Amino acid sequence: MSATTVAVDAIGGEGGLSVTLPAVLSSLEANSDLSILLVGPEQEIAHRIRDAYDRSRLRLVDAIQYVDMDEAPSAALRFKKKSSMRIAIDLVHAGEADACVSAGNTGALMAISKFVLKTLDGIHRPAICGTLPRAEGQVHMMDLGANIACSASLLFQFGVMASIMVRYLDGIENPSVGLLNIGIEEIKGNETVKEAAELFRSSTLHYKGFVEGDAIFTGDTDIIVCDGFSGNVALKTSEGLAQMLTKITREVFTKNAYAKIAGKVASPALQSIFEHIDHRRYNGAVLLGLQGAVIKSHGSADTIAFAHAIDVARRVVNTNLIGHIGEELSQLNFVAIAN
Amino acid sequence: MSATTVAVDAIGGEGGLSVTLPAVLSSLEANSDLSILLVGPEQEIAHRIRDAYDRSRLRLVDAIQYVDMDEAPSAALRFKKKSSMRIAIDLVHAGEADACVSAGNTGALMAISKFVLKTLDGIHRPAICGTLPRAEGQVHMMDLGANIACSASLLFQFGVMASIMVRYLDGIENPSVGLLNIGIEEIKGNETVKEAAELFRSSTLHYKGFVEGDAIFTGDTDIIVCDGFSGNVALKTSEGLAQMLTKITREVFTKNAYAKIAGKVASPALQSIFEHIDHRRYNGAVLLGLQGAVIKSHGSADTIAFAHAIDVARRVVNTNLIGHIGEELSQLNFVAIAN
Repeated sequence: MSATTVAVDAIGGEGGLSVTLPAVLSSLEANSDLSILLVGPEQEIAHRIRDAYDRSRLRLVDAIQYVDMDEAPSAALRFKKKSSMRIAIDLVHAGEADACVSAGNTGALMAISKFVLKTLDGIHRPAICGTLPRAEGQVHMMDLGANIACSASLLFQFGVMASIMVRYLDGIENPSVGLLNIGIEEIKGNETVKEAAELFRSSTLHYKGFVEGDAIFTGDTDIIVCDGFSGNVALKTSEGLAQMLTKITREVFTKNAYAKIAGKVASPALQSIFEHIDHRRYNGAVLLGLQGAVIKSHGSADTIAFAHAIDVARRVVNTNLIGHIGEELSQLNFVAIAN
Repeated sequence: MSATTVAVDAIGGEGGLSVTLPAVLSSLEANSDLSILLVGPEQEIAHRIRDAYDRSRLRLVDAIQYVDMDEAPSAALRFKKKSSMRIAIDLVHAGEADACVSAGNTGALMAISKFVLKTLDGIHRPAICGTLPRAEGQVHMMDLGANIACSASLLFQFGVMASIMVRYLDGIENPSVGLLNIGIEEIKGNETVKEAAELFRSSTLHYKGFVEGDAIFTGDTDIIVCDGFSGNVALKTSEGLAQMLTKITREVFTKNAYAKIAGKVASPALQSIFEHIDHRRYNGAVLLGLQGAVIKSHGSADTIAFAHAIDVARRVVNTNLIGHIGEELSQLNFVAIAN
């Protein structure tokens, strides 16, 4: 067995096996230190890959049940104990895998992870920390949709955990943090963000103040902290705008003969723009606050995107991120302020 | 005096007179049925335009005080009674203007409008209804930032008012309404959006259910209702992404000699994409819920954008939108559910 073992939920996402299987095989090929426990319908998977894999690094774990994308988290927790998602998380809990990756139902993934793995001391609600592109570099946002409403102290915890993550994954010693609001002046926003700002200001974090939505793409803080409702709205809004622009660009460059030629000439440039904002390169959000590494892939991820999520899992394990977060939180004695 | 008179806050926005004055002059030229009361430093304005204007349709109203962009709404309300913004709103209240337009401080504009003009019967909190582009057509979002937190009944009121607006301004008899949430399934979201969904479902509005952020740009509902925090985050996020893409596009097409040529060849196509999403074409959000027509321009609007906001004001007046909203609300007897 090699250094890092990742359990992969093979049938949680919209693409199912036809996405996860090639992603797993390419990840294994790209990383010789990686082993994978692939959780899904064993017979079908075995039939698909036949003998063309390295049994010492890819093990199949049978599961035919899966969590539906629109299933209530409480129902998934109660009735889907044999699901691919649940078994992948169980493997992390049992110490057989160092991390797990799923493209399945976010709410269910969060609920099952919390139930099986438990939260870190002092953390009452884990959250999703994801990455988005900028013209130069990238930004990490937390929470992207796990917690609809967040107290000030929860928002502060997000900032602490995301700061540790960026330090270990990106090697930025003291990453800067902005707090999402609807204005940058101190008087703006609701009581919760104002209270959270106070907590950030009196902390040792590199807090830069309130930021507005445009700072996600044009700002300079390494991290943007927000409640899961706003975070999810921002994420989905930007996905929608990117989709719309892709559609318009395609239409404009096929409108007439001249436009088609222009499109061909401009193709390398256009390609590099689309690659830059390609969300697949940023796929793989980390559920922070758990006693274990759980990585959420976008539900509609393709092979490239899903392989990226596996890579995030690998880096989370290799940097011992979850261990570091646990240690640093215990020093901060969060219990007093958590709610 | 011609059919429609609009009071314009000449010095409320970031661009000041150098934006508002040319916008006013071009609007007057484009619309022979328009008169403008331009509120700002009379001497300076008179000096700038000399005799080159039609005094029967442009009247200068002196104001040298202005509301700062970061001034607290309560302070603006109390201490800026001689400001260009306040006087423009006072002119609407006095019946001298049919509508007013300002690019100034949103919170102050809302607070002063509410104080001076009062809300319509049954409406406790007015909100901002703005327009965003789609690949085909457009979408109206309400609230874009006036109300940080919204009750279910307030969200429902937004839907009612926006529906009336779209009917009169866009001529869509029964516009469809989506409610912004972090999932489209009924089980998703907080109690407020779930309750609001119930109110929409039992109404006569053309309610289509929950929508996610991507539906702003890729969806098909004519209206998206949301609280002002999420609405503002969505708006600013999309502005930021558009800015970033513009920057990347510029960089990519100037990177080397081939890219520069490609950029020239593709220029008409690229231009049409940028024009399509040009926020200036969508400038001019309507404050709905007031006993008077107040139009908010983007603070950093340029001349084209500000002229568009004046045009929105003209259309709001010409369709008697505010009168229609008042009438329809009185039939709905909103008082019982408002909070």
